[in-house]
Amino acid sequence: MSSPVAAACTAVAKRSGPRLASLSCRLCGAPSDPSPVAVCEHCLGPLEPVYDPARRLPTRAEIEARPRSIWRYREWLPILDAPVVSEDTGFTPLLDAPALARALGVRRALVKNDAVSHPSCSFKDRVVAVALNAAVGLGLDTVGCASTGNLANSVAAQAARAGLAAWIFVPEDLEVGKIVGTAIYGPRLVRVKGTYDDVNRLCAQVADRFGWGLVNLNLRGYYGEGSKTMAHEIGEQLGWRTPDAVIAPMAGGSLLTKLDKGFRELRTAGLLDGAAPRMYGAQAAGCAPIVNLVASGGEKIEPVQPRTIARSIAIGNPADGRFAAKAIRTSGGGAAAVTDEELVAGIRLLAETTGVFGETAAGVTVAAALKLAREGQLRPTDELVLCITGNGLKTVEAVLPALPEAPVVAGKLREVAALVEASR
Amino acid sequence: MSSPVAAACTAVAKRSGPRLASLSCRLCGAPSDPSPVAVCEHCLGPLEPVYDPARRLPTRAEIEARPRSIWRYREWLPILDAPVVSEDTGFTPLLDAPALARALGVRRALVKNDAVSHPSCSFKDRVVAVALNAAVGLGLDTVGCASTGNLANSVAAQAARAGLAAWIFVPEDLEVGKIVGTAIYGPRLVRVKGTYDDVNRLCAQVADRFGWGLVNLNLRGYYGEGSKTMAHEIGEQLGWRTPDAVIAPMAGGSLLTKLDKGFRELRTAGLLDGAAPRMYGAQAAGCAPIVNLVASGGEKIEPVQPRTIARSIAIGNPADGRFAAKAIRTSGGGAAAVTDEELVAGIRLLAETTGVFGETAAGVTVAAALKLAREGQLRPTDELVLCITGNGLKTVEAVLPALPEAPVVAGKLREVAALVEASR
Ligand SMILES: Cc1ncc(COP(=O)(O)O)c(C=O)c1O
Ligand SMILES: Cc1ncc(COP(=O)(O)O)c(C=O)c1O
Ligand SMILES: [Zn+2]
Ligand SMILES: [Zn+2]
Repeated sequence: MSSPVAAACTAVAKRSGPRLASLSCRLCGAPSDPSPVAVCEHCLGPLEPVYDPARRLPTRAEIEARPRSIWRYREWLPILDAPVVSEDTGFTPLLDAPALARALGVRRALVKNDAVSHPSCSFKDRVVAVALNAAVGLGLDTVGCASTGNLANSVAAQAARAGLAAWIFVPEDLEVGKIVGTAIYGPRLVRVKGTYDDVNRLCAQVADRFGWGLVNLNLRGYYGEGSKTMAHEIGEQLGWRTPDAVIAPMAGGSLLTKLDKGFRELRTAGLLDGAAPRMYGAQAAGCAPIVNLVASGGEKIEPVQPRTIARSIAIGNPADGRFAAKAIRTSGGGAAAVTDEELVAGIRLLAETTGVFGETAAGVTVAAALKLAREGQLRPTDELVLCITGNGLKTVEAVLPALPEAPVVAGKLREVAALVEASR
Repeated sequence: MSSPVAAACTAVAKRSGPRLASLSCRLCGAPSDPSPVAVCEHCLGPLEPVYDPARRLPTRAEIEARPRSIWRYREWLPILDAPVVSEDTGFTPLLDAPALARALGVRRALVKNDAVSHPSCSFKDRVVAVALNAAVGLGLDTVGCASTGNLANSVAAQAARAGLAAWIFVPEDLEVGKIVGTAIYGPRLVRVKGTYDDVNRLCAQVADRFGWGLVNLNLRGYYGEGSKTMAHEIGEQLGWRTPDAVIAPMAGGSLLTKLDKGFRELRTAGLLDGAAPRMYGAQAAGCAPIVNLVASGGEKIEPVQPRTIARSIAIGNPADGRFAAKAIRTSGGGAAAVTDEELVAGIRLLAETTGVFGETAAGVTVAAALKLAREGQLRPTDELVLCITGNGLKTVEAVLPALPEAPVVAGKLREVAALVEASR
């Protein structure tokens, strides 16, 4: 352990944070005490929390009686005591989307609407809630992230509320909504020349040097588990059963991997009826390394140089890419990449059929679902859940050029009458 | 009744919509059958739904067992059968805000976070959910509104999902987020030269001419009742009791009036413990006709010409202004107006202390609370609920100039080290 980390760990005694689950290597199984370290010291594999197999699990009724937040699934989260920050994140709507189901040609479509996630309007609120409790549990008082935008918003928001200092690193040229939606909380915001992958490389060094808790780097083992709650909620909201298929956007590949894990865990616990869902992953054609891996059937991600307006999922070298590809394959699912034009059409289709305004990643998800349905991978008998992970208000630039100009009138009724006439 | 309205009413039989409560005049008490008419034919007073005083009311436990949406308070809403559209709006978080309480100098502050309202990220989702069910109940298949932005977003979103045609009228020069957040749903969007009050005048004629359901004009009697659910939720979320004080932004004055009504109704039903809260209203100094009326102690609104960046609440001639002023007075509350500079500081204070990014109206609310606390109207012993009614992502223009430029680095660790050094 480098000295800043050791200094941070000493601080544990001074603050009262929750106890954390221990970690173990996903590849070689080597155990590790709770610490702000995300890769195995033996094989560099990713670390994951270990849950006591003998722990008492709650019944459906017990879970239903708990507050509506991600913490109602606490037995599957690595924070062993009551959370001390971000107590109220989670439990977003799952809505029936019959008009979207018709457009897709599936039996039933449902939208899991994390575009209205509290507080920062993306599913990243889930992972950040877990990571910040881990940071406090480890005695860290400065947190941060390398982000394509949504994570920046969420870390800034939740750190501000928790009274933690935050250092946030993003690509230089993010959308205005993502920048303002971060800066408003008063973090240290640093824009980095280059792509997200450059930001990520820099942040790995930053974590080592300053001993901060960078949520998606040295706290990644804890962070990732938060995404499972999206699966948990879907299962509970369907009446404690699985859907046939689930589609989600992929950047680093963590969300899809953890959704798969979340469904499997609740099934293993006997809480969800039905088979494990087929998992489908969506990427932009301009940055589709995980889709490529699924298509090639290989084992190793070939990094790409991102070129897409779907900035939030433009990660050319995805940390969990091979795990996402594996979850897709073993679940019997698939993957699809869509053009920027298709993703804009996807945002509009979602809005017009469901009333939900999603961001670019949501457009990718809907457009990929359309493509998979047309290819016959999604079937007419399927009940499909679409994971809408971020809010369209953050990426208005992406859709603005495609929307019709609204006519301007001077305020006379006959001008309106003319418009009505013309619209018939 | 004019012929388009009669034609619309004939259509009731053809569609299967919910039955609606009858209306009666708030001023002279004259009754009126359910219809798309919002003012009394005798005295031009506003019409309000009438509830059967002998109807069976639910217990706290019965309400708690219902789905978490506005419809769990259905006995206080004018839709008499199960809703057929917008079934899932409502039940936003109420969060404890200790750091904000310290800044305000009150015992406790809580934030009611309608910035993450489903689907369109403002409290207008509540009123629109009620109004669209009323529209369907009345057999109307075209809806619309005159809007300062949030209502436009919500009508467009919920009409799209419901499969209703929508005609939406807004002032010409709204914020980009409000325009895109409307147009994305594919309504007929019309921009009108002039202020909101000009838009409103035009829409009154439009409603008469085309027989559409304009939610805040001829459906206003139904629409307004939706705002009560914000009070209902606050009471339930506090453990079935009232706070000492509530502060909300005011535009047309409906929200504040209905919050007051919502608390009173649940208290009368024996469901809420505690006194009726003191109601506080917030406006921008550049458009404060209701604050002026509270200050003057008069009976009649003096319309003003709006001049403020708080576009969403820039209504110079508020339809329910006198009722809002009356609710403020009789509840023992107060009102305050704040400058545009103060509202920007209010948005930042809210974000930095609570992790919630509110829009301009939220900044007005927080800044007004600060002012009322400094004046001693809000007291050190108070438990205060701040109604945060809209999302900051919709009004990024308002805060952008005030936020610090984020430094740009080339991706070298020593650049970050220099920033860290400089920040100490
Ligand atoms: C909106 C949105 N959806 C999906 C993702 C994908 O997440 P992951 O990196 O876990 O694959 C991201 C990541 O930033 C995102 O911002
Ligand atoms: C964000 C926001 N808050 C508050 C209000 C005030 O609502 P009312 O017109 O009911 O006073 C509005 C009205 O448009 C609004 O958009
Ligand atoms: Zn290992
Ligand atoms: Zn009357």
